Amino acid sequence: MNKIEHLGIAVKDAEQSKRLFAKLLGVEPYKTELVESEKVETIFYQLGPNKIELLRSTDPDGTIARFLEKKGEGFHHVAISVDDIYAEMKRLKEAGFELLSEQPKQGADQKLICFLHPRSTNGLLVELCQDIRG
Amino acid sequence: MNKIEHLGIAVKDAEQSKRLFAKLLGVEPYKTELVESEKVETIFYQLGPNKIELLRSTDPDGTIARFLEKKGEGFHHVAISVDDIYAEMKRLKEAGFELLSEQPKQGADQKLICFLHPRSTNGLLVELCQDIRG
Repeated sequence: MNKIEHLGIAVKDAEQSKRLFAKLLGVEPYKTELVESEKVETIFYQLGPNKIELLRSTDPDGTIARFLEKKGEGFHHVAISVDDIYAEMKRLKEAGFELLSEQPKQGADQKLICFLHPRSTNGLLVELCQDIRG
Repeated sequence: MNKIEHLGIAVKDAEQSKRLFAKLLGVEPYKTELVESEKVETIFYQLGPNKIELLRSTDPDGTIARFLEKKGEGFHHVAISVDDIYAEMKRLKEAGFELLSEQPKQGADQKLICFLHPRSTNGLLVELCQDIRG
């Protein structure tokens, strides 16, 4: 495991939060991307070697909409970058962690991703991600 | 703002969580430190340029004990490293963010720290921290 790739933060009002996080971090977002399979719009800020990802639901029945209803705005998940997501998924499964998918999925920002169930990780939603560029 | 310095995670059972995160991250913690002013024991893991900090309450009336009662285990705060915490505190205050202390405080791991109130940051508890070594 290499580093915290990004922190995912659930927000209600993308425009208001986009300005707020630009003021907080002192930098404008470098990218906005729709991830249709996950029913979210993502807004990315670079923070040195890490990123902050705002998550806005594009569907009232989507994961983020349900999360906001239950828990409100704020931290949603932490993504950890790995070199070989298949090897890490195998290692973690064998160590007793619960994976949310059997195979990696296509995530935002050109990544293969897989989530671990927070009930196996002390309540922390963890995403594994592997860069698939070049 | 330089990077995510660490992610603070509230845990109930330090021994169980210490083993769990060692398995998850594939590395043993490099340090355990009591922060008496905050009534917490902290357990640190290195993750490339970032750290994971487990937080266990040492006092049933402490901040982390109250957090666990209200929200359960999991994400507590994100710490962002800065070069000049006084300048960042001034900048953020002027930009409308709410600081939880007027002056930086002594944190774990040889840092000066200051928290921002989550009601000014979309529900995300943010710690600013400046390394005071050397």
